[in-house]
Amino acid sequence: MSKVSVSIIMGSRSDWPTMQEATKPLEELGVEFEAKVVSAHRTPERLFKHASEAHTRGVEVIIAGAGGAAHLAGMAASMTHLPVIAVPVASKNIKGLDSLLSMVQMPRGVAVACQAIGGAGAYNAGLMAAQMLALKDEALSQRLQEWRKAQTDSVPVEVE
Amino acid sequence: MSKVSVSIIMGSRSDWPTMQEATKPLEELGVEFEAKVVSAHRTPERLFKHASEAHTRGVEVIIAGAGGAAHLAGMAASMTHLPVIAVPVASKNIKGLDSLLSMVQMPRGVAVACQAIGGAGAYNAGLMAAQMLALKDEALSQRLQEWRKAQTDSVPVEVE
Amino acid sequence: MSKVSVSIIMGSRSDWPTMQEATKPLEELGVEFEAKVVSAHRTPERLFKHASEAHTRGVEVIIAGAGGAAHLAGMAASMTHLPVIAVPVASKNIKGLDSLLSMVQMPRGVAVACQAIGGAGAYNAGLMAAQMLALKDEALSQRLQEWRKAQTDSVPVEVE
Amino acid sequence: MSKVSVSIIMGSRSDWPTMQEATKPLEELGVEFEAKVVSAHRTPERLFKHASEAHTRGVEVIIAGAGGAAHLAGMAASMTHLPVIAVPVASKNIKGLDSLLSMVQMPRGVAVACQAIGGAGAYNAGLMAAQMLALKDEALSQRLQEWRKAQTDSVPVEVE
Amino acid sequence: MSKVSVSIIMGSRSDWPTMQEATKPLEELGVEFEAKVVSAHRTPERLFKHASEAHTRGVEVIIAGAGGAAHLAGMAASMTHLPVIAVPVASKNIKGLDSLLSMVQMPRGVAVACQAIGGAGAYNAGLMAAQMLALKDEALSQRLQEWRKAQTDSVPVEVE
Amino acid sequence: MSKVSVSIIMGSRSDWPTMQEATKPLEELGVEFEAKVVSAHRTPERLFKHASEAHTRGVEVIIAGAGGAAHLAGMAASMTHLPVIAVPVASKNIKGLDSLLSMVQMPRGVAVACQAIGGAGAYNAGLMAAQMLALKDEALSQRLQEWRKAQTDSVPVEVE
Amino acid sequence: MSKVSVSIIMGSRSDWPTMQEATKPLEELGVEFEAKVVSAHRTPERLFKHASEAHTRGVEVIIAGAGGAAHLAGMAASMTHLPVIAVPVASKNIKGLDSLLSMVQMPRGVAVACQAIGGAGAYNAGLMAAQMLALKDEALSQRLQEWRKAQTDSVPVEVE
Amino acid sequence: MSKVSVSIIMGSRSDWPTMQEATKPLEELGVEFEAKVVSAHRTPERLFKHASEAHTRGVEVIIAGAGGAAHLAGMAASMTHLPVIAVPVASKNIKGLDSLLSMVQMPRGVAVACQAIGGAGAYNAGLMAAQMLALKDEALSQRLQEWRKAQTDSVPVEVE
Repeated sequence: MSKVSVSIIMGSRSDWPTMQEATKPLEELGVEFEAKVVSAHRTPERLFKHASEAHTRGVEVIIAGAGGAAHLAGMAASMTHLPVIAVPVASKNIKGLDSLLSMVQMPRGVAVACQAIGGAGAYNAGLMAAQMLALKDEALSQRLQEWRKAQTDSVPVEVE
Repeated sequence: MSKVSVSIIMGSRSDWPTMQEATKPLEELGVEFEAKVVSAHRTPERLFKHASEAHTRGVEVIIAGAGGAAHLAGMAASMTHLPVIAVPVASKNIKGLDSLLSMVQMPRGVAVACQAIGGAGAYNAGLMAAQMLALKDEALSQRLQEWRKAQTDSVPVEVE
Repeated sequence: MSKVSVSIIMGSRSDWPTMQEATKPLEELGVEFEAKVVSAHRTPERLFKHASEAHTRGVEVIIAGAGGAAHLAGMAASMTHLPVIAVPVASKNIKGLDSLLSMVQMPRGVAVACQAIGGAGAYNAGLMAAQMLALKDEALSQRLQEWRKAQTDSVPVEVE
Repeated sequence: MSKVSVSIIMGSRSDWPTMQEATKPLEELGVEFEAKVVSAHRTPERLFKHASEAHTRGVEVIIAGAGGAAHLAGMAASMTHLPVIAVPVASKNIKGLDSLLSMVQMPRGVAVACQAIGGAGAYNAGLMAAQMLALKDEALSQRLQEWRKAQTDSVPVEVE
Repeated sequence: MSKVSVSIIMGSRSDWPTMQEATKPLEELGVEFEAKVVSAHRTPERLFKHASEAHTRGVEVIIAGAGGAAHLAGMAASMTHLPVIAVPVASKNIKGLDSLLSMVQMPRGVAVACQAIGGAGAYNAGLMAAQMLALKDEALSQRLQEWRKAQTDSVPVEVE
Repeated sequence: MSKVSVSIIMGSRSDWPTMQEATKPLEELGVEFEAKVVSAHRTPERLFKHASEAHTRGVEVIIAGAGGAAHLAGMAASMTHLPVIAVPVASKNIKGLDSLLSMVQMPRGVAVACQAIGGAGAYNAGLMAAQMLALKDEALSQRLQEWRKAQTDSVPVEVE
Repeated sequence: MSKVSVSIIMGSRSDWPTMQEATKPLEELGVEFEAKVVSAHRTPERLFKHASEAHTRGVEVIIAGAGGAAHLAGMAASMTHLPVIAVPVASKNIKGLDSLLSMVQMPRGVAVACQAIGGAGAYNAGLMAAQMLALKDEALSQRLQEWRKAQTDSVPVEVE
Repeated sequence: MSKVSVSIIMGSRSDWPTMQEATKPLEELGVEFEAKVVSAHRTPERLFKHASEAHTRGVEVIIAGAGGAAHLAGMAASMTHLPVIAVPVASKNIKGLDSLLSMVQMPRGVAVACQAIGGAGAYNAGLMAAQMLALKDEALSQRLQEWRKAQTDSVPVEVE
């Protein structure tokens, strides 16, 4: 799998420390990805082009992270039939409750797959992308099941 | 003022009972308007075209109403330099707190003028549009000041 | 595609009016599904068995709907490597904010794909399941793209 | 445009670090402004005089920032027909959710144009003021469109 | 005590069904009151005059009820040294959380005495006004203590 | 006025940095006060005795500050006919929204006079106590009016 | 077990429709109970007596239900060493979020066992009381385990 | 009492600084306990085994602490008839409101005994466990009553 399967987009460079978490499970599971800044509000044409053409480039899943009035994931989803995974980045004052509600409360007919607020959500976005891709990639499915088993085995019983 | 100065857009026909409130002060103040369904999520190209071309049709102010993950106002604002007034329509379960946060928490660089949740907000959106247009229309400014005075005079002192 | 690809589970029969919405896009897109009551709290062994054995039965995506302290989706996700789509059912008093937070705020390492609160979220869960399956099913992908186009075309411009 | 077109008022000197953000787009776009401390609660007569006389001094738009029980914008709006832009300053404990609701939930008949909580909201208040003034100032409209274009061009694609 | 000691003001006639509750304990305790519509936003001059002159008419306590961006109590408090009791009237969509935060989160230096949201809060506003007046009226204090004792005695032990 | 007119109670010594703010306006206005730790939960008998006997010691107003499940003010109010002013102390995690709701949402028949969360609320509690006492103390009323005027005069117009 | 083991108290007769749910599992499991109206605010002495003497009457567990600023459970817990189970009754406007926070956010040193908002919480309060008593009553423990098994068996698999 | 009566489980080692608070009252009251990491999501089989077999090892009460989508307590409760005490650990962004709602809003038929968010809640979980065990252990009941009395006596009256 050498082509880019997952396109990670984010509203601002300042979202990268959060969104970088998404790359960890993708790297561990051997899924190719790209990461780009695409701002729904400041670069709507870039978003339009990126989302509507993603499938023509071989992208299969989009991960979109943004904060505040976070329109990136929902708008990407409006322009592609590929699954879009949403990561609500924690905002400064409301701490991501705004980002979460802006992303998850999508209307009937256009869906996103929303994750938790912040870095844990970004990490799980990478994992969920891999779970989706594993539906069609038996080798990835095997790696995923081993990765999950290793994760389970790594949880210590002792508290310290 | 016979051209359409204010374009009222909404994400769904079901928003019309709320958004119709915006037409009341516009009618009372003699401001021409249009009202259209433009869904950010279901018709992104229609939104792109509507928002980016509005000023070429003579539209001067856009009023955008939507509920839930309400991306309509912010995305319209991303595609025009005209002022966009946002109306958070009350959602079914969270009653518009999601709509409000999705609309008002815009990032630095792209602004909307957010109103209250629901019908009062829609009504005030019409009023705010007129206030903006009155900056350049002395006759409208006079009508607005008289309208405001009449409103003040109409508030009864007695409770029943 | 005659086997069951999507397993819809819910915490209680009372969630069915909400969760039935998930069946609409699945039926329209020709995706086979089953619907079962599996309560995380009242039938934990049924959940354990259902989630951990789903892939052996050919299930590819699980949709889980529950309300209040909604543990069904997260616990199903903990027991399978298949993608689990979460639907927060509106609760009586807090109207689904509890359901939403219980479902979406998953810890690093076990992901769900959360949808909006209530019937719109359930509907979108069916749609997201189809989007995931379309990654491996070109015919479904074609149907999905046509379905999306028809949806776009069906949005009226006129408000009434 | 050498007269003061925009009057920035705030409830306390402690709001200045937030409200100073409003001056940035105004300066960049060449809009003249003033900035004053006007407390709704501690100096109600100053507010009354400031808001009701603003238009006589040539002020065309008022930007009002305050935190907590933030009454400044709504009360200014009650005393002038000029558009009032509201900036909810983040409060110490509730982090501006109180400021936001106090400002945005205006009753039918008196409107404000509410922005996001905190510095981004203040910045956008300046931008929105310029957008309003550009309705009547073609040169400003041109500068605004160029400023928006430059902003779009300045968004990097690369994440680091 | 035949002069009007307590002035009940409210932002709209629609607040009267809530605010009428305030009159019950006042009537039972023999405290004279008046009730007026004074809108902070629609009639700011009426508010200015009412609040700043209240003590000259012999008013000793002001009760102010309003909903949404509820500025009435805080603004009245800014214009008088008399104690102002605030009643957050339940708003349509957010159910009074906005009214509550708009009223209670007053800044250092201008205080209101905030009550619960809705009719119970209005009732208690009347009671609190009587408690304040009882500090200087021994007969009222006696009636108040008897009223409180009767209230205690009236609580049944049996659940039905 | 050399007797203690205002009794400041708080649920824990850790509330003192917040509650000490209440002493400032009392000192500036020459109102005698005491400050005690009285925990509703850990010392219910002390609370019972303190609240029910306060009026016998000449106390006229009680100020009660507490955080989290803040029962101190409401329970004090249940045991005295004196006015009780409530100060919601900011809690560690929810930052005082719990304290605020625990204090302000009193049921019909027992009232408290609730202030803002945290130090500003404590400060205003002292001010509100003075406002209540000024109803019966003309000299205090004069000092209060001068204090308010001085406060108004001290608000600078310039932002820095 | 013929003595009263569980004392159900509530702040008002209007809480009975909710609190009656608590009696169902108690009856089904054969646990004796009583139900009384004890208002923390309107009958503090009754509460003091009831809570502090409960153990002398053989009561082993207290269930306390109240709404709004719900102090009943926490105050009962402050006056007894018996376990107190708290049931937040849904309030009119905030729908029990106030009741929940007022009950659950107890300070270090005095605990309650909080249940969900409303009838489900009341029902579970009865169940939790039985679970506590089963620690010392082997026959009850057996009935409880059978009851739990029957509950599990009664959950249908089919959705309709 | 040398066997382990209380089993403290937590979703992650990172919860230990919070959950360690639960050990303090247990140690002071002489109740034996164990502390283990059991993750509902990463180790569901460990949870299943731990919860369903706890009573066979002599455990009488389970304390479960977790953050975010906190399913640990509810799922443990679904697999045992022993009382389960829930401790919502403060999450990073929403500060435990998610943890609290995920834990406390249990459906009819499976109960937990929820405590406050964070360390105070963990401490009270230990105390509540002791209160439950004291129902069957007269010596523990005596120690508990003395401990409570000592706690009451240790509350200083003076604020500093």
